[in-house]
Amino acid sequence: MRTEKVEIFDTTLRDGEQVPGCKLNTQQKLKIAARLDELGVDVIEAGFPVSSPGDFQSVNEISKLVKNATVCGLTRAVKNDIKVAGEALKYAKKPRIHTGIGTSDSHIKYKFKSSRPEIIERAGEAVAYAKSFVDDVEFYAEDAGRTENEFLAKVCTEAVKNGATVLNIPDTTGYCLPEEYGKKIKYLKENVVGIENVIISCHCHNDLGLATANAIAGITNGARQIECTINGIGERAGNTALEEVVMILRQHPYLQLNTDINPQLLYDTSKMVSREMGMYVQPNKAIVGANAFAHSSGIHQDGVIKNRETYEIINPADVGVTESAIILTARSGRAALAHKAKKMGYNLTKLELDIVYSEFLNFADARKEVADHDIHTIMDIYRKSSRAIA
Amino acid sequence: MRTEKVEIFDTTLRDGEQVPGCKLNTQQKLKIAARLDELGVDVIEAGFPVSSPGDFQSVNEISKLVKNATVCGLTRAVKNDIKVAGEALKYAKKPRIHTGIGTSDSHIKYKFKSSRPEIIERAGEAVAYAKSFVDDVEFYAEDAGRTENEFLAKVCTEAVKNGATVLNIPDTTGYCLPEEYGKKIKYLKENVVGIENVIISCHCHNDLGLATANAIAGITNGARQIECTINGIGERAGNTALEEVVMILRQHPYLQLNTDINPQLLYDTSKMVSREMGMYVQPNKAIVGANAFAHSSGIHQDGVIKNRETYEIINPADVGVTESAIILTARSGRAALAHKAKKMGYNLTKLELDIVYSEFLNFADARKEVADHDIHTIMDIYRKSSRAIA
Repeated sequence: MRTEKVEIFDTTLRDGEQVPGCKLNTQQKLKIAARLDELGVDVIEAGFPVSSPGDFQSVNEISKLVKNATVCGLTRAVKNDIKVAGEALKYAKKPRIHTGIGTSDSHIKYKFKSSRPEIIERAGEAVAYAKSFVDDVEFYAEDAGRTENEFLAKVCTEAVKNGATVLNIPDTTGYCLPEEYGKKIKYLKENVVGIENVIISCHCHNDLGLATANAIAGITNGARQIECTINGIGERAGNTALEEVVMILRQHPYLQLNTDINPQLLYDTSKMVSREMGMYVQPNKAIVGANAFAHSSGIHQDGVIKNRETYEIINPADVGVTESAIILTARSGRAALAHKAKKMGYNLTKLELDIVYSEFLNFADARKEVADHDIHTIMDIYRKSSRAIA
Repeated sequence: MRTEKVEIFDTTLRDGEQVPGCKLNTQQKLKIAARLDELGVDVIEAGFPVSSPGDFQSVNEISKLVKNATVCGLTRAVKNDIKVAGEALKYAKKPRIHTGIGTSDSHIKYKFKSSRPEIIERAGEAVAYAKSFVDDVEFYAEDAGRTENEFLAKVCTEAVKNGATVLNIPDTTGYCLPEEYGKKIKYLKENVVGIENVIISCHCHNDLGLATANAIAGITNGARQIECTINGIGERAGNTALEEVVMILRQHPYLQLNTDINPQLLYDTSKMVSREMGMYVQPNKAIVGANAFAHSSGIHQDGVIKNRETYEIINPADVGVTESAIILTARSGRAALAHKAKKMGYNLTKLELDIVYSEFLNFADARKEVADHDIHTIMDIYRKSSRAIA
């Protein structure tokens, strides 16, 4: 079996941008779109053109700018939405319209006040209408995570019959467990008529902290596209984080799945998106957080000094982080202190280290971190006291 | 089959506190320990007593303070560590010593420069020595995630033979995929001699964004304790987030697993830990992030206004969040604008809404969010222009 490609569909500029506080102007969107193209994403969801004049303009200009990726615009299963998206995308080298409708009983009953047969009909009509503007039409079955599988397969079959090229199966509310989401993808793979000619896409939300795991469960069960965002931003608790799924595939070659992403741009792209949107990335964020490659406990520091791989599965340089950090705190051990002191020019004997370490701990217990200049202070104290004794 | 309990082992004060920037003084540790006890955690890992005089004192005072939870102290498989932990815990109503050793080939070779038989022997000796201080001894097989299952079962068997009450199987480097971690737990459940008398514990790291999914895979395969932290803090990309696993079990009653956690304290506890440690929680953090229950896109707002459950699987009040927020941005639709305007005393006809909405979009395209006072401004503009026309 040879390695298969998983398409990366980035929705930072759509699902990410619709978040409180994340709104970007057109210039900012263009800057991020250019970077996503350089990063190697397969599809850039540029916006929801009908939602506002500003968003229409952004999708339009991104379409002109992007060189490699497919540019995609979101719509509801509403004629005017689709028509406006077609216009916004007219300059794209590879345009895609993303249309769809809610399929769970909750959405059918409360949101659409509709019925299952009517939803199937509207789904087919929307795809067919989108096909009159572009060849590449992605259909989403909103709240698929809570949609009964048998009905979901019927809606998807109708979308494929009308020309859908990609079927997006969103866990809109972030409800599914990985096993459950994986089974759903497997069911569709086995029951949608014409599925062999289309790509199944995973769009997972993070309400229970499972967006990344669910996307991985999706692709190991036959999906071949992941919808994700930089830093995992998006509605509520966000979406699958691009940097996480990309690195999971790289770190687990036995899955025989890969992406076209250049991982060395991950850290810088994370910083760029965080800065432009004003959306802080927490220090304990996987791959791109400030502490993702920092070691502070004594046990871990000792291990990493002996051999990086004892506590690090990813070489920080692979994702564009300059080096893994050994940070001295009250939980650091002798090995880390000796390592740091040596780097600063102090070669300590074992006996000296014991005395200096005890001084270091008293010092560190009162502080969050011990900086380089503090090490000089501690060494000064040690030297003065040892002279006094001698 | 009746519902079984999963023990919650909180390590905010140990794995969480050893992180760069997270160091707490004893008073802060006592405050958080009291809250964890009130929250309903089963075990509080209070620190690593041998690491510094300050940490010893904290474990000692937490032991006196805590009323309900077991208080646990970390050690290496080193006699002095265990002796010091025993002393630090002497006032605890329910003391536990947590001892262990690295079991992966990487740890055995590079960290310990040792051999498999020697590691088994040291594991057994450490547990036996800890038993001379307390009845409740938890054994950790560090880097179990990368340890070959057959050898891991042998080390665990030795620990159980020497009196371990809990077996902690850490995915120390955050390497495992959920399916792989689940299989490991299942293998141990079937192959460790005496396993029927001990609890298997999951300690997962988040380097690939899978800590929560791995812990859930662990308990659905037979583990009955989860090690976790408030806000998922911890070494590098952190640990399993307590709030996530607790809510996953509540939202999926078919798993027939529950915890003793009072979810209504989750949000406030998250805030407290974030404040005391100075560790920011990103807005898109599941359950406790500022945006976790915020809706800003038009499609979602329309749904939530019609019926909360269309886009919300958790009632925010259940985790102590006062209400879910409808935030107006350029991605908001007519339904959200009408909803907000009505709350502010403006009852708009359908025709009026169309005109006001168009004005609102121009206004919103230039801003990140539209505040209540902006709505008044927009309504003023509308009223003046409609008077001018009339």
